[in-house]
Amino acid sequence: MKIAEVEFHYLADDVIRDIGDGSQDALLVHVTMDDGSEGWGECEAAPLVSIAAWCCPMSHLACKPLKASVLGFEIKEPKDIYALTEKVRRNSFDLLQADHTLSGIDMALWDMLGHKLGEPVWKLLGYKRAFPKTAYASQLFGDTPQQTYEKAVRSRQEGFRAAKFGWGPFGLGSVQEDWQHVEAAREGLGNDLALMVDAGTVWGNNVARATAIIPKLLECKVVWLEEPFASGALKAYAELARSFGCEKLLAAGEGSHNPDMACNLMDFGKLGFIQIDTGRIGGISSAKQVADYAAQIGTTYVNHTFTTSLALSASIQPFAGLENSPWCEFPVESAPPARLLTKARILPDANGEVRLPDAPGLGVDINPETIARYGRKVEIRYEENTIWSTK
Amino acid sequence: MKIAEVEFHYLADDVIRDIGDGSQDALLVHVTMDDGSEGWGECEAAPLVSIAAWCCPMSHLACKPLKASVLGFEIKEPKDIYALTEKVRRNSFDLLQADHTLSGIDMALWDMLGHKLGEPVWKLLGYKRAFPKTAYASQLFGDTPQQTYEKAVRSRQEGFRAAKFGWGPFGLGSVQEDWQHVEAAREGLGNDLALMVDAGTVWGNNVARATAIIPKLLECKVVWLEEPFASGALKAYAELARSFGCEKLLAAGEGSHNPDMACNLMDFGKLGFIQIDTGRIGGISSAKQVADYAAQIGTTYVNHTFTTSLALSASIQPFAGLENSPWCEFPVESAPPARLLTKARILPDANGEVRLPDAPGLGVDINPETIARYGRKVEIRYEENTIWSTK
Repeated sequence: MKIAEVEFHYLADDVIRDIGDGSQDALLVHVTMDDGSEGWGECEAAPLVSIAAWCCPMSHLACKPLKASVLGFEIKEPKDIYALTEKVRRNSFDLLQADHTLSGIDMALWDMLGHKLGEPVWKLLGYKRAFPKTAYASQLFGDTPQQTYEKAVRSRQEGFRAAKFGWGPFGLGSVQEDWQHVEAAREGLGNDLALMVDAGTVWGNNVARATAIIPKLLECKVVWLEEPFASGALKAYAELARSFGCEKLLAAGEGSHNPDMACNLMDFGKLGFIQIDTGRIGGISSAKQVADYAAQIGTTYVNHTFTTSLALSASIQPFAGLENSPWCEFPVESAPPARLLTKARILPDANGEVRLPDAPGLGVDINPETIARYGRKVEIRYEENTIWSTK
Repeated sequence: MKIAEVEFHYLADDVIRDIGDGSQDALLVHVTMDDGSEGWGECEAAPLVSIAAWCCPMSHLACKPLKASVLGFEIKEPKDIYALTEKVRRNSFDLLQADHTLSGIDMALWDMLGHKLGEPVWKLLGYKRAFPKTAYASQLFGDTPQQTYEKAVRSRQEGFRAAKFGWGPFGLGSVQEDWQHVEAAREGLGNDLALMVDAGTVWGNNVARATAIIPKLLECKVVWLEEPFASGALKAYAELARSFGCEKLLAAGEGSHNPDMACNLMDFGKLGFIQIDTGRIGGISSAKQVADYAAQIGTTYVNHTFTTSLALSASIQPFAGLENSPWCEFPVESAPPARLLTKARILPDANGEVRLPDAPGLGVDINPETIARYGRKVEIRYEENTIWSTK
């Protein structure tokens, strides 16, 4: 069967706030095959730009719109989806946004193939089992240590076994203020819950500033320090990783938009944890390549997910079968378009664990009412032609 | 003075062919300050997608359109342009295309500031002198070794002291066929001209396939082998660089869309030559950062340019003062929109050397007739609003 149509749905909340919450909009991808099979996927961030990457005119041989590679491509089995990734990367490697657009398309194809074959995606990826993952409540730091403390208490009350705090004021003020936030988080969680800290790349490549927070992180038994530096600052990661007491403490990778970038962070940045956003790295095919490599070299794989249950399912499938990668990012502060996207949500159980749906494909059903309510119209015209228009 | 307006001009040839010629379209950027000062820049490839990155709605704190950071930003001196780069990268780091859009805006700001202060850009960058660069005629391999031979003869006749061949059939067939092309190029150039070979990432991360061509490259006294692998395949680069006779032979970097990526290629990929496209890496500010680092660690900096005299000037300025980086990519097969963009073209002199124009800013004048002839209309609508429209 061949790819017959790719539809994009741009969802956005009524007001987009200037905060680090990536769930305020979404770009849904719906793929239909020529035999009527269908599947859903999701691209992370900047929906309009990713739509433009689908429909733009060709610039040259290695800068083609996604549609040039995707429409009409034949998909019979998993290896065909991997082959499409190769084709898109070859045809569009000078089109920077291409990897983000590819991500949602690739997800939708795995979902489609799973439904077609009656299997969950993790089985198609070759795993024998899908291990439950311990969900960590992923949230922003409070504006004050007191607010951070209250958020931590709430995560504990909600039954989470782990929580991560990030962004907000962290790293922008003094080291002392950062310490207070980390202490407040640990106090609110109690001693038995796992705590992770996300610096959101705030220190650029300033190793000294990052080093100053390490003693407090170790004292508060933080599982990892995430993104102290920009995604590509490999030397800074390596230097911090080599400092005393810091082995295996660093996590990063969400900015990777192809497997090479993630592998470089592991090989040269000496991470303990590699975090992959399936909506950015090129989709499930690319994420699985990273998971395979992480398992091979003993780095712990973690999903990066801050949006919908669709994105959550797609982000867990690539490492579902890795027993030694036990954590799962679980967004707890999602905005309405993300929270309401699927008919049922994937939620942690009473043990604070997330299990993938026992259903074909990605195992989630899209709620058409949410698309109708939050869907936004886009139209792109080139010369005298409409090259994209929301239906 | 503050940035008052940013205008984009999407130029494209009447027919875009499916070949590796990046000069078939262009995205020109025209910046106007609130005191009337103005400047021109150019983004590499996928013009429509880069325009979308300028005008799209915000997704969240770290995924804003470029216009949110750029409009109203105050520029008085060079350090302000660097500060704008920082701001854009912080505000748009989840918007993958942002770096390409930033590239043209940054160039235009340096051009503007140079005109305002009556200085060429290389002086504003802190260089005392602009050294002439030896132009290499940058072109595609012929379809057959005979055609490659004829192209090489032509480059010699045109007075070039160096030529680079890339893409076309190279690397796609047998090693034997690749050898024939390299031999034909050397024969056509004669023994006294420099020869470079560009594999155009054709071997992905296949070190063995790349290794097979090395003996012939050494026999034919090739200056460098460019992009045997994908931009981010650092381990493959490092492995090939370590092989016998291959030290300092490898060149890459054109795909870098921020300085970290380029520095990683030097630090971990062990390149001899780092090639930067000022239209992709984030503009002149980012390119200069790479040039500084290359000079510091003894890697040779080379521009990557395949389009206009505007792009050529902008790509030479960042390494104009580096005497030990003597090569300059010079596109010899540009399509009409690129060839006709500027009133005068920057051309090699009788010694085959390129000199930057002795004039303020980037030193080139845009030809309005070319914009009128090859300019393409774009309109982007979001909900009920036109968020971009070509004037």
